[in-house]
Amino acid sequence: MNDLTQPGVTQDTLTQLHEKLASKSLDRVRDLLSEMHPSEVADFLESLPGKSRETIWNLLELDKEGDVLAHLQDAVRSELLEQMHPHEVAAATRDLETDDVADIIQDLPENVQDSVLLSMDEQNRLRLASVLSYPEDTAGGLMNTDVIPIRADVTLDVVVRYLRRVENIPEKTDNLMVVDRENLYLGTLSMIDILIRDPEEFVGDIMKGETGISADLSDKEVAKIFEQRDWISAAVIDEQGVLLGRITVDDVVDVIQEDAEQTVRSMAGLGDDDMFAPIFTSTKRRAVWLGINLATAFLGAWVIGRFEDTIQQLVALAVLMPIVAGMGGVAGSQTLTIAIRGIALGQLGKSNARALMLKETAVGLLNGLMWACVVSVIVIFWFGNVSLGFIIALAMIVNLLVAALAGAVIPLGLKRYGIDPAIAGSVLLTTVTDVVGFMTFLGLASIFLVS
Amino acid sequence: MNDLTQPGVTQDTLTQLHEKLASKSLDRVRDLLSEMHPSEVADFLESLPGKSRETIWNLLELDKEGDVLAHLQDAVRSELLEQMHPHEVAAATRDLETDDVADIIQDLPENVQDSVLLSMDEQNRLRLASVLSYPEDTAGGLMNTDVIPIRADVTLDVVVRYLRRVENIPEKTDNLMVVDRENLYLGTLSMIDILIRDPEEFVGDIMKGETGISADLSDKEVAKIFEQRDWISAAVIDEQGVLLGRITVDDVVDVIQEDAEQTVRSMAGLGDDDMFAPIFTSTKRRAVWLGINLATAFLGAWVIGRFEDTIQQLVALAVLMPIVAGMGGVAGSQTLTIAIRGIALGQLGKSNARALMLKETAVGLLNGLMWACVVSVIVIFWFGNVSLGFIIALAMIVNLLVAALAGAVIPLGLKRYGIDPAIAGSVLLTTVTDVVGFMTFLGLASIFLVS
Repeated sequence: MNDLTQPGVTQDTLTQLHEKLASKSLDRVRDLLSEMHPSEVADFLESLPGKSRETIWNLLELDKEGDVLAHLQDAVRSELLEQMHPHEVAAATRDLETDDVADIIQDLPENVQDSVLLSMDEQNRLRLASVLSYPEDTAGGLMNTDVIPIRADVTLDVVVRYLRRVENIPEKTDNLMVVDRENLYLGTLSMIDILIRDPEEFVGDIMKGETGISADLSDKEVAKIFEQRDWISAAVIDEQGVLLGRITVDDVVDVIQEDAEQTVRSMAGLGDDDMFAPIFTSTKRRAVWLGINLATAFLGAWVIGRFEDTIQQLVALAVLMPIVAGMGGVAGSQTLTIAIRGIALGQLGKSNARALMLKETAVGLLNGLMWACVVSVIVIFWFGNVSLGFIIALAMIVNLLVAALAGAVIPLGLKRYGIDPAIAGSVLLTTVTDVVGFMTFLGLASIFLVS
Repeated sequence: MNDLTQPGVTQDTLTQLHEKLASKSLDRVRDLLSEMHPSEVADFLESLPGKSRETIWNLLELDKEGDVLAHLQDAVRSELLEQMHPHEVAAATRDLETDDVADIIQDLPENVQDSVLLSMDEQNRLRLASVLSYPEDTAGGLMNTDVIPIRADVTLDVVVRYLRRVENIPEKTDNLMVVDRENLYLGTLSMIDILIRDPEEFVGDIMKGETGISADLSDKEVAKIFEQRDWISAAVIDEQGVLLGRITVDDVVDVIQEDAEQTVRSMAGLGDDDMFAPIFTSTKRRAVWLGINLATAFLGAWVIGRFEDTIQQLVALAVLMPIVAGMGGVAGSQTLTIAIRGIALGQLGKSNARALMLKETAVGLLNGLMWACVVSVIVIFWFGNVSLGFIIALAMIVNLLVAALAGAVIPLGLKRYGIDPAIAGSVLLTTVTDVVGFMTFLGLASIFLVS
């Protein structure tokens, strides 16, 4: 049994596992694995390079495979699924919750999906079909179909007798879903009320009337509602209001985690790269981003190239120009990050975009003024050239202003055209701050400093 | 009532609110606010510039203030709390859950904290004291003290009769906590079991034995366990194993959200800046980061300065050098992001650091080789200088290799010295890729290209 009061145990176990794996003591590894929670095995698999992943996977008990798959991140899961036979996938996923099976199935190639579905028994296949008919990133794709509907026109006593006959009451049942004769969703009845209220009362008189979540609502919206309302479970309904299933908060936690992670990854140009993806896969995933950045870097170089004569006459310009461009980039990224998260969390839109731009421009101006003073003093002492000090100060103020404006405008503009600002934002911003930085600094110098 | 099946409503309401606010139709704003969920009001406040925040706050009904405060992010909450009288804070927080009150109180200055505590009634003060005795970012700081403990040596029938007498059974009760005569935590009894099992059975025979979460466990560890185990609630115990309270998943959701957000903010050097912090506050919060970056930019400039003569003889070097440095920065950031999230999620440690470094170096080398070829071809055509093409290719390969290595080593090293890699990582990395990029490219050029 895991002693949860000592979280260090996990890190120790991991180190032990790595050691045993390195020394090929596979029996010992098998023992350790059998004591671990499936989610811990998933964590361990994610922390391993590709080859060791296979070794560990083959040491795993068959009845643990499904749970481990459910806890793995998509990229690693696909990798392992590729090596499994459809029958094995069907067997491994037999006892999982519907939404977890659906997640796994959707990672398989079309033809393998069909084989897996055919290997399942009738009941599981039907449960799955309704979840699979909705995209993975909607309420319908998140839901479980293991909901126990009860009718509003029965007494609590009847409900309790009914519950005693139900074979598997799903875990995490804090309340039951109430429906009418047509299976239209009406609201919830809490387990607590069933316990403490008079058994002769009718469900309809005690239940809390509520609207369900529409099956085609996006998973991010679902997460937002759960987070705002502190819900534990909620009903999912179709367009007619018919109860389809329920979403529990543990699935929502994964969506929230995934969403924030994705912003971090997108902003760094990682796509869905994972820590130990095969080398060629990682190289390919990251190459695109490097290529795009290279193209914009050449744009910056081209701008500098327009001023070759100026630089030839005063090489100090070449020494200092990366400072102007770089500071613009850093300041712009700050604004960009604020704007991207504001958009992702639904707090930044048309109605307050203007206010944000004004505020960011003011912040950019103040920081521009402050650091321009510092820079100009250093430059004047370093190069003994007062005009150069003034010119770099002016260029920096301009670039920090432009950076603040671009940091706010770019993500809002991208959003408008349906492009994810987290992916395209930073490369566009750097292009702007590089081009403006080089152009202002070298341009001002060519006008005022050299003949 | 909010129709949750149409999430668009929220965005519409927000736009309406912004419009009414701009046209000073404050009565209409008040009506809209009274229909909104406290979490929506919190979202709306966060999306407003400072002055409008005050206006809205003053329009809010007093009995909604507490719930809204509980949903606000720290920076905005502190801002509003500064204007509230201690009595008002005490009144507003009266009906909140203990952990929410504790969160709010901890944002107040020491002397105000005491006044608020004194304005509370005895019972609330006692409940709070136990939560406040633990740091905000531990299991103890997260817990609620509203737990209903039941004894193992009673029958289910007794439990039900007891529950009927309890005045406020807390929401989100999926199971009850079982303790022995000394209040030592033993395990959980699910509400479902109470309903469907024989009333004559003893709690001790049906309950699920479990270890509680230690009160001083960090909130991130708590979040990880909840996420891994798909828990809804868990018991919090002290060193002796005495039941102190319980943590529910909705509080954990906030920790998870906050944790990922913090990585994004830290990496951009935003600290705890929010979208509409006062201009001077934002300027100050971001200035530090700009200053640090400026210092490292001067380090880069100093390196370039060593090669003034070389650049004077071949200005093309000044044109191209930002490309070498920039590509290193982008590639390094990709590795850095992977490593920082790996560390934050506990998947990267001593045991697999070596494997990550090897993998990242290989990816860096492959991408270096590929893009170096592209760059050299472009440079040869642009400047008609084959040697220059070879030198920039070589410099890029070296810098991408160093970038990959630095992207993995820097966060691991910072972590070892107890520094948050998300905060200090990117500035250190850029320093390395700038210095190495400029030095290799200009150095190689000074040896092989110019006399």
